Amino acid sequence: MIRAAVLGGAGYIGGELLRLLLGHPEVELAAAVSSRLGGKRIDSTHPNLRGLTDLTFCAEEELEQYDVLLLAAGHGATMELLPRLAGHAKTLIDLSGDFRLTDPAVYEAYYGLPHTAPELLGDFVPGAPELAREALRGADRIAVPGCMATAAILALRPLAAEQLIEPDVTVDARTGSSGSGATAGPANTHAERSGAMRVFAPAGHRHEAEIAQSCGVRPTMTATGVEAVRGVQVLCRATLRDGVDETAVRRAYRRHYADEPFVRVVAQRRGMYRLPEPKVLSGSNYCDVGFAVRPEARQVLAVAALDNLVKGGAGNAVQSLNIRMGWPERLGLEFPGLHPV
Amino acid sequence: MIRAAVLGGAGYIGGELLRLLLGHPEVELAAAVSSRLGGKRIDSTHPNLRGLTDLTFCAEEELEQYDVLLLAAGHGATMELLPRLAGHAKTLIDLSGDFRLTDPAVYEAYYGLPHTAPELLGDFVPGAPELAREALRGADRIAVPGCMATAAILALRPLAAEQLIEPDVTVDARTGSSGSGATAGPANTHAERSGAMRVFAPAGHRHEAEIAQSCGVRPTMTATGVEAVRGVQVLCRATLRDGVDETAVRRAYRRHYADEPFVRVVAQRRGMYRLPEPKVLSGSNYCDVGFAVRPEARQVLAVAALDNLVKGGAGNAVQSLNIRMGWPERLGLEFPGLHPV
Amino acid sequence: MIRAAVLGGAGYIGGELLRLLLGHPEVELAAAVSSRLGGKRIDSTHPNLRGLTDLTFCAEEELEQYDVLLLAAGHGATMELLPRLAGHAKTLIDLSGDFRLTDPAVYEAYYGLPHTAPELLGDFVPGAPELAREALRGADRIAVPGCMATAAILALRPLAAEQLIEPDVTVDARTGSSGSGATAGPANTHAERSGAMRVFAPAGHRHEAEIAQSCGVRPTMTATGVEAVRGVQVLCRATLRDGVDETAVRRAYRRHYADEPFVRVVAQRRGMYRLPEPKVLSGSNYCDVGFAVRPEARQVLAVAALDNLVKGGAGNAVQSLNIRMGWPERLGLEFPGLHPV
Amino acid sequence: MIRAAVLGGAGYIGGELLRLLLGHPEVELAAAVSSRLGGKRIDSTHPNLRGLTDLTFCAEEELEQYDVLLLAAGHGATMELLPRLAGHAKTLIDLSGDFRLTDPAVYEAYYGLPHTAPELLGDFVPGAPELAREALRGADRIAVPGCMATAAILALRPLAAEQLIEPDVTVDARTGSSGSGATAGPANTHAERSGAMRVFAPAGHRHEAEIAQSCGVRPTMTATGVEAVRGVQVLCRATLRDGVDETAVRRAYRRHYADEPFVRVVAQRRGMYRLPEPKVLSGSNYCDVGFAVRPEARQVLAVAALDNLVKGGAGNAVQSLNIRMGWPERLGLEFPGLHPV
Repeated sequence: MIRAAVLGGAGYIGGELLRLLLGHPEVELAAAVSSRLGGKRIDSTHPNLRGLTDLTFCAEEELEQYDVLLLAAGHGATMELLPRLAGHAKTLIDLSGDFRLTDPAVYEAYYGLPHTAPELLGDFVPGAPELAREALRGADRIAVPGCMATAAILALRPLAAEQLIEPDVTVDARTGSSGSGATAGPANTHAERSGAMRVFAPAGHRHEAEIAQSCGVRPTMTATGVEAVRGVQVLCRATLRDGVDETAVRRAYRRHYADEPFVRVVAQRRGMYRLPEPKVLSGSNYCDVGFAVRPEARQVLAVAALDNLVKGGAGNAVQSLNIRMGWPERLGLEFPGLHPV
Repeated sequence: MIRAAVLGGAGYIGGELLRLLLGHPEVELAAAVSSRLGGKRIDSTHPNLRGLTDLTFCAEEELEQYDVLLLAAGHGATMELLPRLAGHAKTLIDLSGDFRLTDPAVYEAYYGLPHTAPELLGDFVPGAPELAREALRGADRIAVPGCMATAAILALRPLAAEQLIEPDVTVDARTGSSGSGATAGPANTHAERSGAMRVFAPAGHRHEAEIAQSCGVRPTMTATGVEAVRGVQVLCRATLRDGVDETAVRRAYRRHYADEPFVRVVAQRRGMYRLPEPKVLSGSNYCDVGFAVRPEARQVLAVAALDNLVKGGAGNAVQSLNIRMGWPERLGLEFPGLHPV
Repeated sequence: MIRAAVLGGAGYIGGELLRLLLGHPEVELAAAVSSRLGGKRIDSTHPNLRGLTDLTFCAEEELEQYDVLLLAAGHGATMELLPRLAGHAKTLIDLSGDFRLTDPAVYEAYYGLPHTAPELLGDFVPGAPELAREALRGADRIAVPGCMATAAILALRPLAAEQLIEPDVTVDARTGSSGSGATAGPANTHAERSGAMRVFAPAGHRHEAEIAQSCGVRPTMTATGVEAVRGVQVLCRATLRDGVDETAVRRAYRRHYADEPFVRVVAQRRGMYRLPEPKVLSGSNYCDVGFAVRPEARQVLAVAALDNLVKGGAGNAVQSLNIRMGWPERLGLEFPGLHPV
Repeated sequence: MIRAAVLGGAGYIGGELLRLLLGHPEVELAAAVSSRLGGKRIDSTHPNLRGLTDLTFCAEEELEQYDVLLLAAGHGATMELLPRLAGHAKTLIDLSGDFRLTDPAVYEAYYGLPHTAPELLGDFVPGAPELAREALRGADRIAVPGCMATAAILALRPLAAEQLIEPDVTVDARTGSSGSGATAGPANTHAERSGAMRVFAPAGHRHEAEIAQSCGVRPTMTATGVEAVRGVQVLCRATLRDGVDETAVRRAYRRHYADEPFVRVVAQRRGMYRLPEPKVLSGSNYCDVGFAVRPEARQVLAVAALDNLVKGGAGNAVQSLNIRMGWPERLGLEFPGLHPV
């Protein structure tokens, strides 16, 4: 048993970390920090945890020593916090956007503010087991990718890595409302957000930079909020290189993901759930990846779906921790999702 | 053409007033007041109005003289506002809770604050055409009932008026999220409110007092927020008096509502939409009313459904205005609702 | 490890049994019967099971010997099937309505057809751990209660058992669409069912009979389909007996459920989730139970929520099996539900 | 007053025709044909029409002479029906896919069956006022375009007509469940379709052919079913030609749509509803069109939204009829949509 602490535990990614760590057989959830809710029970914010714990939120100042500290704070804030919190744990896993990009200039371009700890960027290993499993084994600084980025990277990586596609790709991302966090505001009230198809990022979404960095492609991404609480789906379009056909595409996906515990290739010719869809993934750590080839147009459509709070955040963090600790990779992440839901 | 002004036009009831008045052939929408959005276009808040108007919100201080002033402000605030605004129009139609109850003691019991203008309570006629059509013809002070109250009153009135039921009734009200207004807060974010079945008022909801006042019954009411933006449905249970059977019940509803332009009796033995349901009423001014009798238990279930922003608010206000002005009662209220939706 | 077979595995309760048994450490899922889908992979119907199993549906005729056979077929059909299937397993767990009621006359009154195996009714123990834990320990014929019945029984039982309430109670049940099963029909298409508040049973719902039988009350029940896929919530109203106050009520709930692994008492004075709500229970085996007392009316409102496919069906079956086998009661049922969702 | 008949009145497009024609001041709805529901009241299928009409469905054989016959039957069936029904009215308006494409070879390629009345294809004028207003003035054969096609065409036409973009475009279409019609089937049950992000057409959707025909572009289209009953949104991506900037794009949209009664240009820099979104268009005949330019990538994103049953079908038919008859174009189509909803 190791001792873990979560910072930002009142948010949605934070709450999902609490759920997963409370159910993890090798982890003791020792502390959950909330600047706003100090002293309140964590199950008063996350009612699904009732009966599982009597833990209350604490203030940052009350943090002690832990084996691992997971940070689910906002971008901008995290690069300020991290240096001062680093002493509380040997292993830090950050779920913000602050330590995902290796180039501080790219960070500034996409986040609109200069990076205040550029010297630390090189310390971080991506919390993306499919990309960085070996590096994660010894990692003590882990930066979990963004939810839409994870989906797009897992959709595009086999094609990009095997040079099956041209570098210009488009990414049409759709996301549920939990992706914008737990803070109330005019744009996320139920009456306004319900039934939405809201193109909140017609261009230049931050996750673009992560996709470019991880896949070596030039993505143009749009992001649309659709009716769902959890769930991300991406549709990526690329031009196939000369001579690449459906067989080559299928083979690339199979090869890359044959041994992955949490990536399933879903690309069927018929059936209701023939391509990846997030609704059956709620609560699970799977990312489903599929594709459709349009040979006459030399185009491939790569589709991926995941639960933005799990494989798009907290689950990827726990999977990375499992690898870091040498535990079985599926430990604490066995929930397969529901049907129907 | 008369000139109308709306106060509280940035809210949801206010926005619905703007929509209905802009489409009303006898009304010129002359002003919309918002304390927060002065100078902004009303279609920036209510995007459904794009192309219909160039009106901008104004401040209360900019109000001039109008034929009618409709107030869609909060309870508590309205009883402060009304005396000072009364000079701006001959006819005032209030949609808050402040002038619905005739007894200031009941107001204080249900709203938790003393009424500051009790001397005005007697001036108000209920903005409820089915109850007060004659009184509305000359009325210059009109108080539109609450949304759940309107549904319950229309469901129970025929039974109570004809003394078919015992006075103790229960009311199970279900409501969409727009009923709690446009202000963002933790309880109405999409992620928390989506898919809810939230018993936000297990007892003592304010609309109870209106039902009691209008029907002479002793209601016990619960209110539950369910997944919907618009829509209220009430299930009212009462005990039938000796000798009352289904025929008597049906006859009472038919008699009361045969000539009502906006109440339909929906009580079929089979079919999908055999009892009233709000989804097909969105945007319409109908209140559908139905019932089911359980003879062996001497019980009647009375069901009503409406759009809380229309028949439960703005539409009832416009219908009352039509009566007040001697216009055809359906004027500007012809939209029948959609199917499917 | 015991070997289990599921009949009716293509349905929603059946699919949930498959999910739970595949994740159960002491059970080998050996067969899933579907009359319609023989030879097809079970994950083609239940896409959440992809990667967990290669099992295909088989025909009833292919059934062999198992330790336990779980039946998720329709009512009416099951009483025909059961005698002929009984030889395939020592332990039978039925999830239909056919063996829940002890009195065949009550069955006929509520189901509209005579019971064809009345001599077997006495063999069945209710698959309701909170009511029949001791009897379940040796039981080889188990009949799991209906979903809305389970919620209402758990809400009312402490009050009825301790004689805190009068026998006449009303039950207002709300349910998601999965409760009506997987078969397509006009009433459950998405366009018609979406956003519904459909009073499909204004009186005489079958689960009434189960509530009466288990609690010794006289229930009048209505059932409404609301917008949700999973989830049942019941609001039960009863009159408190003389001298019964909120303290007595709270004490009764605490006493009955203090040691129950899957019943939580949720009755808070404030907060968003102050009373039970199904959305945070999706996929979990919890039934949350709460109450609100209205002393001046001598009324109590008892509220319960659960996932109709889990605690309202498959989960209760597995919990009963755990008890039957002497295993820890939470085995295979640890998933706590999600927030937000 | 002219007399109109609707064939296929039990479907969703047909029901919307009934609603619009019942509310149209110049049209008498004289007949509604349903092969399945002959003799049943039309309001038993379309409950929103209760109180507006006592009309019952009739059989095709009962059709008499009308001024206009609107056909809302399926593709394939319509090309068989139309020659035999043509004698019943001077003016025919078809809402199926059978007479939209001018080239029978393209029809066969996209619909998978040979066209049985290719000689009639040339008679039809597109029921698309923005494209064919002049031709519609005298037209007696009108073919209303597909819902997603209408959205994409209105999004792309100004750019294509003014040669601002390269011919290769991608179209990401999202649609609500009503688009797949009223017939129940496994894929459109509420439990399976709810919360979906279902890529049901990864390539080769039929509406592609219409977009190509009307805009002279080479579209690659995907279609995804998302959670909504009504509503279509398309995201179209194209490469800007050399020297084309945002100003040129904005000017093209303004010029094309300045005088259009039912196309609004929605392309704001900020705000919640800055780009077109179908939810505020439910029931309305608007198509909102917007765009975002990404200069460094020389890309334009063109976005359009509409109600698939109104501007994507029945509303476009009525608007075309208004033009055909020389009536004001907005007649009977004034409903502006709701907010919030």
